[in-house]
Amino acid sequence: MSRGKVLIAQGGGPTAVINQSLVGAVLKSRDFPEVEAVYGAFHGVSGIINEDFINLTGETAENLENVAKTPCSALGSTRDKPDEKYCRDIFKVLQAHAIGTFFYIGGNDSSDTLRILAIEAAKADYPLRCIHIPKTIDNDLTVNDHTPGYPSAARFVASAFSGVNLDNRALKGVYVGVVMGRHAGFLTAASALARKYDDDGPHLIYLPERHFSMDTFIGDVKAANDKYGRCVIAVSEGIHDESGEPIVTKLAKEVEKDAHGNVQLSGTGALADLLCDAIRDSTGLKRVRGDTFGYLQRSFLGCVSDVDQREARAVGVAAAGYAHDGNTEGTVTIHRTASGDSYAAEYQLSKLEDVAGKTKVMADDMIDANGHDVTQAFVDYLKPLLGANMPEAFRLEAERVEKILG
Amino acid sequence: MSRGKVLIAQGGGPTAVINQSLVGAVLKSRDFPEVEAVYGAFHGVSGIINEDFINLTGETAENLENVAKTPCSALGSTRDKPDEKYCRDIFKVLQAHAIGTFFYIGGNDSSDTLRILAIEAAKADYPLRCIHIPKTIDNDLTVNDHTPGYPSAARFVASAFSGVNLDNRALKGVYVGVVMGRHAGFLTAASALARKYDDDGPHLIYLPERHFSMDTFIGDVKAANDKYGRCVIAVSEGIHDESGEPIVTKLAKEVEKDAHGNVQLSGTGALADLLCDAIRDSTGLKRVRGDTFGYLQRSFLGCVSDVDQREARAVGVAAAGYAHDGNTEGTVTIHRTASGDSYAAEYQLSKLEDVAGKTKVMADDMIDANGHDVTQAFVDYLKPLLGANMPEAFRLEAERVEKILG
Repeated sequence: MSRGKVLIAQGGGPTAVINQSLVGAVLKSRDFPEVEAVYGAFHGVSGIINEDFINLTGETAENLENVAKTPCSALGSTRDKPDEKYCRDIFKVLQAHAIGTFFYIGGNDSSDTLRILAIEAAKADYPLRCIHIPKTIDNDLTVNDHTPGYPSAARFVASAFSGVNLDNRALKGVYVGVVMGRHAGFLTAASALARKYDDDGPHLIYLPERHFSMDTFIGDVKAANDKYGRCVIAVSEGIHDESGEPIVTKLAKEVEKDAHGNVQLSGTGALADLLCDAIRDSTGLKRVRGDTFGYLQRSFLGCVSDVDQREARAVGVAAAGYAHDGNTEGTVTIHRTASGDSYAAEYQLSKLEDVAGKTKVMADDMIDANGHDVTQAFVDYLKPLLGANMPEAFRLEAERVEKILG
Repeated sequence: MSRGKVLIAQGGGPTAVINQSLVGAVLKSRDFPEVEAVYGAFHGVSGIINEDFINLTGETAENLENVAKTPCSALGSTRDKPDEKYCRDIFKVLQAHAIGTFFYIGGNDSSDTLRILAIEAAKADYPLRCIHIPKTIDNDLTVNDHTPGYPSAARFVASAFSGVNLDNRALKGVYVGVVMGRHAGFLTAASALARKYDDDGPHLIYLPERHFSMDTFIGDVKAANDKYGRCVIAVSEGIHDESGEPIVTKLAKEVEKDAHGNVQLSGTGALADLLCDAIRDSTGLKRVRGDTFGYLQRSFLGCVSDVDQREARAVGVAAAGYAHDGNTEGTVTIHRTASGDSYAAEYQLSKLEDVAGKTKVMADDMIDANGHDVTQAFVDYLKPLLGANMPEAFRLEAERVEKILG
């Protein structure tokens, strides 16, 4: 049986740089003489089941480079999470097409899919090299310092909050911006990188790593509004009360769940609207506005971190190398080797079981003791990842004119 | 009395380039020897009443250039719409500070404020040069071919829909994106510029220039979803039924109104959620998601059209020139002199009364007869305004692999 065919697929939510990983793995694989062909599966594992393959062996490098710069999974994605039966169906197809290496680009769920697949392959004595390539805007993969996709989404969130802070300063009021992140607050925390001047928002940041209390929240908003004459708030979509119940389900009449049993949090403005109503009702403040950043934060065309682009490319290239070296399973992980201005990272092959299905959340030293802010440690962690040419806000500096009429 | 002091203020909703106009007017005014000082009023006309002035005469050109590139009103803004009493209070302050020229950067409401102010000034025999500098992301000022601020916001909307189209193609379903625009659909229509490939979304575009019928909408969504296996929809926040009632008020329990008597449409996800619920209930489709672009589309840091930047600067510079020439009232208007790749525009001083308080909506030839799309005429109109280096999406081009198992 040929071990020379490579198959690659993309799973889970798209990112701004997921195609960099695709193109890195495709081009590097094509460099190895033992690679007979490189296939792409459409819509993740579901495309394997359906034999929905594209032959990327002859795709021009020029077009691949264009695709690499295009956000969102070029091969399409899926939310399917294979069980054993599903995996047996996958094997049949892999065997039929003589696939020897399978790269799956994805997050927690996708790496768990790959873990199951690797186990099933071993059980079936099928010599499959299963290499997971990390991506997730949630930044919640264990072992990794951070994950490809997160820096670009973080850049979007920081840029968005820089803008809404300016907007809110021009027309004062209370502003609530709801950011993606079910269990991990990394993306919401990125809003802190929007601050430049002392009184810049976000003035309050709520993360799913801490229990959310409506009473405390209202008190925080009042205090911030008293201090600044306005208030910009960043809230994770995943905030929940002490019992673990998401705050949004307290409002939503119907709770939609996905195939993984997760409550649907994105694609609705309900949480922002609930929080705005609560602020209006409890404080009497009039101009209270809420936005839900939604899908824009993971797919917006034209907001990308160059660091993220390079790293997403590198993990794809590294995966091809690990497969070439004969590794039968693993996940490419990112490890920071230098911080601050001299930021650098290296890549390793880690065990699938150390990442698959696990969720990393923000470390305690990244969250302020007040429960509504991040620490300087988090700012230092994220800053080098945002990339070059981060736009910056400036203010007029001139002196006030003395009043005449008083 | 000195005619040499210039006052400048910014009113209404911020834009990405409103500070270009501010800086253009300030720097050009400082070039004229008769200009004794250049003041800025904080928060529009309310800053005049409060004598809340900053002296921009000595503000460094370097910092002004940095501020010019910063989105959102650097002087702050206001929603105040002065009545006669308010205007008399403004005069007292202008007289006390010997202001001879007042530049007000704003949209319909701000130009109407300036119109009232000019009439009151004439009544009071106060020699005030009142020059309006246009800005609005809504693009709804009469006389003007388009308004500064609109091209950058349109670029944001087009970039956002390019991204969500890719996202929706990767994970199929129905997506509703709600865009700002109460009476004019120009900004929502900009979503059409996201299309590159034949099957790209938005597949449906709903504008406030046409009556919205829920039955027709549901039928359109079903048809588009049948055709493409997915559906991306752009909807203006201002869509309304035949009686003129906004669709969002059919949901909202409480309708918030601003000082101008306008129903609050932005800063809530209600419309997107209502439409998603209606689609789910009527079609049985499962993955239905809604985003409301909210304040991001007018303030996002790092998404700007260079054409818009230049033109916003130019109208500020032109206003200073018109005041220098002795004009006592008027509004700087933009007129297209060449289309397509050779796009060019020139500036004129028009009468305040021709713009003030009036609303321009999309011309019939810009709207498709099917009622849910724009025409090529609109695409041709907007394309040159979006500016250089508009990011572009690319797709994989390789052939499908033949099925083996079938």
